[in-house]
Amino acid sequence: MISVVILGAGNVATHLFKGLNKAKDVSVIQWYNRNLEAINPYKNLVDITSDLNTLKKADVYILAVSDDVIATLSSKLPFDNRLVVHTSGSVNIHDLDKKHKRGVLYPLQTFSKHAEIDFKNVPICIETIDKKSYPLLKELALSLGSPTKRVNSNQRRVLHLAAVFVNNFTNQLYRIGHEITESESTEFDLLKPLILETAKKVQEMSPYMAQTGPAKRNDKKTIKAHLGLLQNQEHNEIYKLLTDSIQHTHGRKKL
Amino acid sequence: MISVVILGAGNVATHLFKGLNKAKDVSVIQWYNRNLEAINPYKNLVDITSDLNTLKKADVYILAVSDDVIATLSSKLPFDNRLVVHTSGSVNIHDLDKKHKRGVLYPLQTFSKHAEIDFKNVPICIETIDKKSYPLLKELALSLGSPTKRVNSNQRRVLHLAAVFVNNFTNQLYRIGHEITESESTEFDLLKPLILETAKKVQEMSPYMAQTGPAKRNDKKTIKAHLGLLQNQEHNEIYKLLTDSIQHTHGRKKL
Repeated sequence: MISVVILGAGNVATHLFKGLNKAKDVSVIQWYNRNLEAINPYKNLVDITSDLNTLKKADVYILAVSDDVIATLSSKLPFDNRLVVHTSGSVNIHDLDKKHKRGVLYPLQTFSKHAEIDFKNVPICIETIDKKSYPLLKELALSLGSPTKRVNSNQRRVLHLAAVFVNNFTNQLYRIGHEITESESTEFDLLKPLILETAKKVQEMSPYMAQTGPAKRNDKKTIKAHLGLLQNQEHNEIYKLLTDSIQHTHGRKKL
Repeated sequence: MISVVILGAGNVATHLFKGLNKAKDVSVIQWYNRNLEAINPYKNLVDITSDLNTLKKADVYILAVSDDVIATLSSKLPFDNRLVVHTSGSVNIHDLDKKHKRGVLYPLQTFSKHAEIDFKNVPICIETIDKKSYPLLKELALSLGSPTKRVNSNQRRVLHLAAVFVNNFTNQLYRIGHEITESESTEFDLLKPLILETAKKVQEMSPYMAQTGPAKRNDKKTIKAHLGLLQNQEHNEIYKLLTDSIQHTHGRKKL
């Protein structure tokens, strides 16, 4: 049985609590948050606290808090030589106070407040400073049903960067699609099946193989017409840059 | 019963044939392609031909061919005053020879050669020059099980442009994610659940509401670190431009 204390009350903390609380061989023995109100709804399921001095002894302390408070919170913990991990894609593992055994459990997924999460769709990247901490963190991630991957600091950084491209930037392209369709009083809804199919396609096929469209086939007439339609200067630049990028990937010359 | 002749042998033509061939109240009476070999496997299911002069009389002729041959092929058809439609997002409806009744059936989806298509996930945008042609094309699209939407030329153009953003450009962001992860010997596979979740999220929620990440929360430290990691100049530019775009959408100042 792995005993766990969770610290923080955001989306990641809440989904981790729910996942770990029903996992076999794991016991969430306490949930800390600076402000008790946020975790009060869970008080019948777990011991809650807002006082770091009352933290119980556990096998692992999970700091699922904002990037900018990880270092401070880890320093304030009133104990040492226990396993303390954060859940961030971008924060250095060495930002955790060196009085602790240190690790990272980085869930490579986007969490919404209300949507239920199935942890089998949440790959968990595990990083540790000392090798001995790894098996316990792996067991913890597996108990959630997550795929796991051991990574080093560079790999975690790069996965977080790639996640910004495929998640935040992709979502911004959806947003631009929304703006463009609304500009002619048509419906973003018409694009939704295409959005889903585009994401499904690369589950089976490389993005390289999946590419189609005017940039790929160097259809200059369509590209020119599209640039003419794009009055928004920023959308115009994004169109040009991504068209160039596709053409470089597929061995065409610059526009 | 609507009688249909399909012209062309690409992905769209083939999926339309398969969909219409099993649709109620539709009879695909003939399939034309310049080169018989491509459609020969279907000769037991439908009359096939490579000779325009043998085309049968039908209620609608669907030109599912490359954009650049639509005009020529429509001129070569040895009849007039019948309903002839193309399936392109970008070709002008007036590119069809004016001797015909003219229309467009634009399926707003990406078609793969081998993957089966469920037409309920293929919105079909319908454009016609004369109003009388519309009900028949709508009936045809509905017989496939597709959602349908009547559009004008501007709306179709704009939908095609938006489709390039959410399909081709998004796929290029996946490709960049692939390149970035491989550069540190980690696995693109780890990003696949995130890619799918990002697409699923906007099925229920606007892209505006779905946005998260360093650009949205103006996390300058992470943005700077990411730009430092991106040695590839083009990826660097794309990062900056899409970060700016997110910040404009969400009311932050330029970097």
